[in-house]
Amino acid sequence: MIKLLTALFAFVLLSTGVNAEDGHNLWLRAKSTIPVEVRCSKKSPTINIAINELKNGWQGKAGQVIELKILKDKLLKEDGFRLRENSIQAKTDAGLLYGAFEILRRQQTGESLTEEVINPSYNLRLLNHWDNLDGSVERGYAGRSIFWRGIDSLEVSADDINLWTEYARANASVGINATVLNNVNASPTVLTTPVLERAKAVADVLRPYGIKTYLAVNFASPEVIGGLETADPLNPEVQAWWKEKVKEIYDLIPDFGGFLVKANSEGQPGPQNFGRTHADGANMMAEALEPYNGIVMWRAFVYDPSDEDRAKQAYNEFMPLDGQFHENVIIQVKNGPIDFQPREPFSPLFGAMKQTTVMPELQVTMEYLGQSVHLVFLAPMWEEFLKSETRQEGVGSTVARCTDGSLFNQKYSAIAGVANIGLDANWCGHYFAQANWYAFGRQAWNHSITSARIADEWLKLTFGPQNSDEETSAYDLEWNLSFLQPVKQMMLDSHEATVNYMMPLGLHHIFSAHAHYGPGPWWAPDGMRPDWTPPYYHQADSFGIGFDRTASGSDAISQYRGPLASQLADVNTCPEAFLLWFHHVSWDHKMKNGRTLWNELCYRYDEGVKQVREFQRIWDKAERFVDAERFAAIQYKLTKHSLDAQEWKDACLLYFQQFSKQPIPYELERPLYNLDELLERDEQRVRQSE
Amino acid sequence: MIKLLTALFAFVLLSTGVNAEDGHNLWLRAKSTIPVEVRCSKKSPTINIAINELKNGWQGKAGQVIELKILKDKLLKEDGFRLRENSIQAKTDAGLLYGAFEILRRQQTGESLTEEVINPSYNLRLLNHWDNLDGSVERGYAGRSIFWRGIDSLEVSADDINLWTEYARANASVGINATVLNNVNASPTVLTTPVLERAKAVADVLRPYGIKTYLAVNFASPEVIGGLETADPLNPEVQAWWKEKVKEIYDLIPDFGGFLVKANSEGQPGPQNFGRTHADGANMMAEALEPYNGIVMWRAFVYDPSDEDRAKQAYNEFMPLDGQFHENVIIQVKNGPIDFQPREPFSPLFGAMKQTTVMPELQVTMEYLGQSVHLVFLAPMWEEFLKSETRQEGVGSTVARCTDGSLFNQKYSAIAGVANIGLDANWCGHYFAQANWYAFGRQAWNHSITSARIADEWLKLTFGPQNSDEETSAYDLEWNLSFLQPVKQMMLDSHEATVNYMMPLGLHHIFSAHAHYGPGPWWAPDGMRPDWTPPYYHQADSFGIGFDRTASGSDAISQYRGPLASQLADVNTCPEAFLLWFHHVSWDHKMKNGRTLWNELCYRYDEGVKQVREFQRIWDKAERFVDAERFAAIQYKLTKHSLDAQEWKDACLLYFQQFSKQPIPYELERPLYNLDELLERDEQRVRQSE
Repeated sequence: MIKLLTALFAFVLLSTGVNAEDGHNLWLRAKSTIPVEVRCSKKSPTINIAINELKNGWQGKAGQVIELKILKDKLLKEDGFRLRENSIQAKTDAGLLYGAFEILRRQQTGESLTEEVINPSYNLRLLNHWDNLDGSVERGYAGRSIFWRGIDSLEVSADDINLWTEYARANASVGINATVLNNVNASPTVLTTPVLERAKAVADVLRPYGIKTYLAVNFASPEVIGGLETADPLNPEVQAWWKEKVKEIYDLIPDFGGFLVKANSEGQPGPQNFGRTHADGANMMAEALEPYNGIVMWRAFVYDPSDEDRAKQAYNEFMPLDGQFHENVIIQVKNGPIDFQPREPFSPLFGAMKQTTVMPELQVTMEYLGQSVHLVFLAPMWEEFLKSETRQEGVGSTVARCTDGSLFNQKYSAIAGVANIGLDANWCGHYFAQANWYAFGRQAWNHSITSARIADEWLKLTFGPQNSDEETSAYDLEWNLSFLQPVKQMMLDSHEATVNYMMPLGLHHIFSAHAHYGPGPWWAPDGMRPDWTPPYYHQADSFGIGFDRTASGSDAISQYRGPLASQLADVNTCPEAFLLWFHHVSWDHKMKNGRTLWNELCYRYDEGVKQVREFQRIWDKAERFVDAERFAAIQYKLTKHSLDAQEWKDACLLYFQQFSKQPIPYELERPLYNLDELLERDEQRVRQSE
Repeated sequence: MIKLLTALFAFVLLSTGVNAEDGHNLWLRAKSTIPVEVRCSKKSPTINIAINELKNGWQGKAGQVIELKILKDKLLKEDGFRLRENSIQAKTDAGLLYGAFEILRRQQTGESLTEEVINPSYNLRLLNHWDNLDGSVERGYAGRSIFWRGIDSLEVSADDINLWTEYARANASVGINATVLNNVNASPTVLTTPVLERAKAVADVLRPYGIKTYLAVNFASPEVIGGLETADPLNPEVQAWWKEKVKEIYDLIPDFGGFLVKANSEGQPGPQNFGRTHADGANMMAEALEPYNGIVMWRAFVYDPSDEDRAKQAYNEFMPLDGQFHENVIIQVKNGPIDFQPREPFSPLFGAMKQTTVMPELQVTMEYLGQSVHLVFLAPMWEEFLKSETRQEGVGSTVARCTDGSLFNQKYSAIAGVANIGLDANWCGHYFAQANWYAFGRQAWNHSITSARIADEWLKLTFGPQNSDEETSAYDLEWNLSFLQPVKQMMLDSHEATVNYMMPLGLHHIFSAHAHYGPGPWWAPDGMRPDWTPPYYHQADSFGIGFDRTASGSDAISQYRGPLASQLADVNTCPEAFLLWFHHVSWDHKMKNGRTLWNELCYRYDEGVKQVREFQRIWDKAERFVDAERFAAIQYKLTKHSLDAQEWKDACLLYFQQFSKQPIPYELERPLYNLDELLERDEQRVRQSE
């Protein structure tokens, strides 16, 4: 039967019968007419949503009765729920909603439903939108802001309400319960009343979906919009101004979540402008928010144009402040010590700050990962990060456990993802980038979930056969074998492929300037601060390549805990994935597989290119299972992706070859670009982005 | 020993010890200090040159005595020579010179020298330079003209004399004995006295090297520069004007060769403007030249914007005139019926015009073959052409024999190559394009020589080890195995590779407009005459692809001789290399290997790309045998070549896929470009070339 189907499908190409889809429904495409009865003794907007979701999406037994029940149960954490075949139990209305979405997902993905208690890993599961009030999105690759369209366009339309509702539903379906509406490079204007009124409108839409609203604030707001002469956090007038402002916000948004702050970082104002510490600044805000149970998320992404290794600076600045922050301050730390590179070791702050609540900041938008062109499933990267062993409290002190409250006594636990969402019909620019929004939610809820399971769920929900003539069991089997399995493998391989063709073996930050899209390992104009140029990071010379962070170099390794630090410090035990992150290594260094470093570098770049070419093939072979619109759009981007990978390989190998003075191993495919062509192309790119 | 050397060479990369060369010496790099005594009883400038060449390049036995002897011998044709170990015998001084070069070549390439009589295949072995008087070169890709630099710069410099001498020497070394100094799209100004005086200066330099000078003339010259009211060839004033002009030329250049004429073709004036035939026009000029033994080469490259298949028009126009041309008129026919495509069947005029002298026109400059970027050795293409069976006089009536005088009674035999020479230091733009100049000369001399032998000779002469420390027998062996063999194979495969990635299976003329460099199968602006657009040639539609030249189509096949025409007319016996030249074939047509036409097309394009990538690898591996300058320049162009091949494949397959509506077989590598990107790129290219 499968053979017959294969034959039948073989010629139904380039005009598949699957209905066109624009991706706007994300992973929530399922509709059902199977009847279900949902009972709940309590009424609330959130419970109403849960009931409607179950009724509209039910794919279980026809006529089943489901009871939603609020109860106290020490096994249930806030937002957690207990699933049974005919009931959902939770402590909160939101818990019931999450339970409803969980049942529906299991029905659609064919997972079994046995009695189970399901609690979230983190209390706060946030998206950070880097959306500016003018409607632009910093590092956004999916169109303009869904929240803002300019300071003169603050009125709320019916379309806004619809879109925010869809957004809220999508978030709730994966457990996201908090969102920061604006860019961390925050305009002080965000705290003016007309803007706050629009934020209130958003909050009103999000609330029934269990989502709290937050704002990123500018530390200089009291000066800029408050008319004060200072923003010194120890100044009573400043403190009063913030308290007043917070009160105004809570009058509008009674369940307002709090502030996110980027201070004394990349030119943003902060307490250091007034001789104060990050703790002084964060605590001042925390005091204003505390009466309302609001929180401050204070970013640790700081680095100066000093001689100190950029990778060390956040730790150097924040570790001395450990213990000084109020309870409702959370230090928000990017996963790695530099800046959302394709692969970084975890930041040494995780697990090191034992008396301060620390939360990971992940980047869902792919600033450094091919943006909305490359197909990169980020769950494996985040999984690697969350499962990284810090050794701070012995074996098992993973980053996940250092941040979820299980190792350290803390009131809050949180994780943030910088959103990849915009006005594009498919929300995320690339259809497969939807999977990263989905994955972030799923991992924020359950930091132990595997990437493979997430990919499996997402593919079934996003591309699975819908109720139609196609949906026969033979088709399902064929779909499973010929679509789900290869495409899932592609997703799971995609991050490592990107590391391979961009920055293998621990290389980092060798991007073209400004836009961070293509390769630019050569970029170092006269007078530019070194830590903004790629040569600062790769340190290629006639001896070798890589950043020496051992004791003979910047000694950044000493910021890691004992046994881990020793492992990293020895070039023979340091994981090869981080070799050039921590060591300056001879071109002739023998790798574990016996190749020299130079040859291995060549093999990795080549492998990355080959992997993406294989993704193209996998996708092309999947054509008969996908509607023409999504198939063609993804095929189109994979083609660009593939040539981009080639450009990365050629640029990096030809550039580094000037130092290694060794040939690319002859068994590998030769470059398709010449170095001068790539330099010229990069110059144009840099000019355009300036 | 070889193993040891291999190891030694393995790390001498990117900085080879071989001395830098700029290629200006072409295949004439050899210098020698081995003494030789050359005796000749006759003295002449040509004989002097022969003696000096032998003395400066001798690599035979030290102290050998060589005698040069002019004699009559019925085994010797004009320019032919007899080689013996210690003598060269010839009928003419030039014959001695050719004999000298032959001895030196054999010494340098290690070929044996036994007594042998060597005669040329053609009397006239011409280069046609498409050089304009302003110094530009039509379809030239190697810099500006070596003969002209503008009508206001006609004075002859010492540098001119040097360069022309080098040019003459290179030609003589491969047997070329005639050259047309200017473009067939000829300016009437070429016949004005100041220009003729410069032509005389060139002729004076070329003469001692056995080379006669020719000019391309504009048929309207009597009107434009003569002040007559007509150029009607039957008008006595016109006839008188030409006679007078010819006399003026012969006063300056007593051994002037004659005229080359492009008339009534692509807008050039001609006898048809006055209601006369090509024969009327050619004969009028022939009469003027006849007293001086001058000849007229009259081009058959004619086609009108009519409904008639362009491939048929030259035959249609010229066949009725067979027998009407004077004895000193030669009809110059491009190898194929269209226009120097990567592969064409031979023009049906070859062998068909039995009472007229017909000469082949080959294009050494690679207008349609990647110009000076792609590495394409043209000898195999020309060999295929020369050995094509016309069947006009039974089996064995090859194009070579139909044109060399052996089948038909004719006073002259000739072959022309459109030169690829310019002011570039290496003469030809691409170092490997030198091989095509070399090959043209060798094949014009000996139309039975194999491409493999030419490549072998040229590589040894051009890249072979020079007298130096390197030149040990171990090095020679290593050079032979690791350089000569693979690089020769690359050359021999390069033409078929180009056909594969550009126009496999008989596709033709699907180039980007005007520049004829990249792919443009889609190009067909409103109002453009159809025979200038690619869709006219490929005829792709939902049924299939290819130009139907059978009886059900344009019937161009009927211009070929009996058994050949039948073979071509049957889709099952037509050689697959010409399938789409002669047939409009279903996408699902089964090829001889069992694939469908569409799949085979995909395989061919893919194979072409793979072949060029393999050329890159071969060249990279040859690095240690080549000086850094030539190595890098060739590597650079191969890289562009490789990406160009990719562009050709992607453009053609994605464009034709719109008609075939079938997938590219999944086992093949996927496109690296999207069709819209290629269309955009082509639009820019066409705009630039307009």
